[in-house]
Amino acid sequence: MSEVLARLARIIASRKGADPESSYVARLQTEGRDAILKKIGEEAAETMIAAKNGDPSAIVRETADLWFHTLVMLSDCGLSPDDVLAELERRFGTSGIEEKASRDKNR
Amino acid sequence: MSEVLARLARIIASRKGADPESSYVARLQTEGRDAILKKIGEEAAETMIAAKNGDPSAIVRETADLWFHTLVMLSDCGLSPDDVLAELERRFGTSGIEEKASRDKNR
Amino acid sequence: MSEVLARLARIIASRKGADPESSYVARLQTEGRDAILKKIGEEAAETMIAAKNGDPSAIVRETADLWFHTLVMLSDCGLSPDDVLAELERRFGTSGIEEKASRDKNR
Amino acid sequence: MSEVLARLARIIASRKGADPESSYVARLQTEGRDAILKKIGEEAAETMIAAKNGDPSAIVRETADLWFHTLVMLSDCGLSPDDVLAELERRFGTSGIEEKASRDKNR
Repeated sequence: MSEVLARLARIIASRKGADPESSYVARLQTEGRDAILKKIGEEAAETMIAAKNGDPSAIVRETADLWFHTLVMLSDCGLSPDDVLAELERRFGTSGIEEKASRDKNR
Repeated sequence: MSEVLARLARIIASRKGADPESSYVARLQTEGRDAILKKIGEEAAETMIAAKNGDPSAIVRETADLWFHTLVMLSDCGLSPDDVLAELERRFGTSGIEEKASRDKNR
Repeated sequence: MSEVLARLARIIASRKGADPESSYVARLQTEGRDAILKKIGEEAAETMIAAKNGDPSAIVRETADLWFHTLVMLSDCGLSPDDVLAELERRFGTSGIEEKASRDKNR
Repeated sequence: MSEVLARLARIIASRKGADPESSYVARLQTEGRDAILKKIGEEAAETMIAAKNGDPSAIVRETADLWFHTLVMLSDCGLSPDDVLAELERRFGTSGIEEKASRDKNR
């Protein structure tokens, strides 16, 4: 499971310069960053609505859509999911206890 | 890197029922789902703004904030990052070629 | 100019129960509140992107879209633009000086 | 009621260059456009949540916050609420019947 984001990032990168008719990602990339960001706004809204409705499968689907479009955005910006995971790793360290201690110091 | 989301989900789960004063996550969980969803809306907006500005470190930070708060939401809904990764895996299969073929068939 | 919002609210109300094929608003109303709220999320994102781009006509168009869909939402909730304008009136009173004084007191 | 938006726009304009400590609007204007747009994202999210919850007074308050921050954004972009109202007027004309006819033609 854990390699899904990295594999998705490779798929997304492989679509760059492809015929916009050949895949959804190629079309988004051709339309450009504003089109990608608009999708992030849309999918965030749909995630919020799904979570208010409390339907687990809709929540999973909309969150997947949201994460997917953030991966397309990261690729468009020359970044990778590992950059984001490294940032989360940096913040939360190797244990919850350390995270808590770190946060307490920074309050 | 790949285990960061699962480890973060465990940290978030461990905060449930904790003193709201003891950590940011415990406070969000005590405030409830609307507070968590509001943060998703905020962080999506900040991610969009960062991507428009094109500053890589801000993009990474804001995307990390967005993913983090979706993890808090998933936990609040009894779901895990693996549920979302499995959905992405289901959509994109084991290779980009198959993903593309699958998408072409579904257009 | 000032009566546009009230007139729009009457047009929107008149679409309730109309054939969804007959107008965009009737279709949105038939799809229900989630569809309307999703549009608010979308239009807010497009407004933000337009403002980042600084193109005045796009900013005006997207803000008009955002306000329009908030009017559809208000109608769906049994509320009117006058309810919102009355709330703004209540907050800001009859002059900027009073607004400022009121805010200073409440800080 | 109908003059509230124009009066608010004048109040907002009068805050430009004011001491950021003197009012909330002056502080937002000093922080700049990104801070204003972030508030639009936040208030759109809060409006959506309020509408899902169905509490009329919260819906009115959050919609007022959303409209207010779009007025601050318009001012920051050198635009006025009348620009947006004129766009809505242009789209919807003087009667619902004409709006409907116009939309039908454009489908």
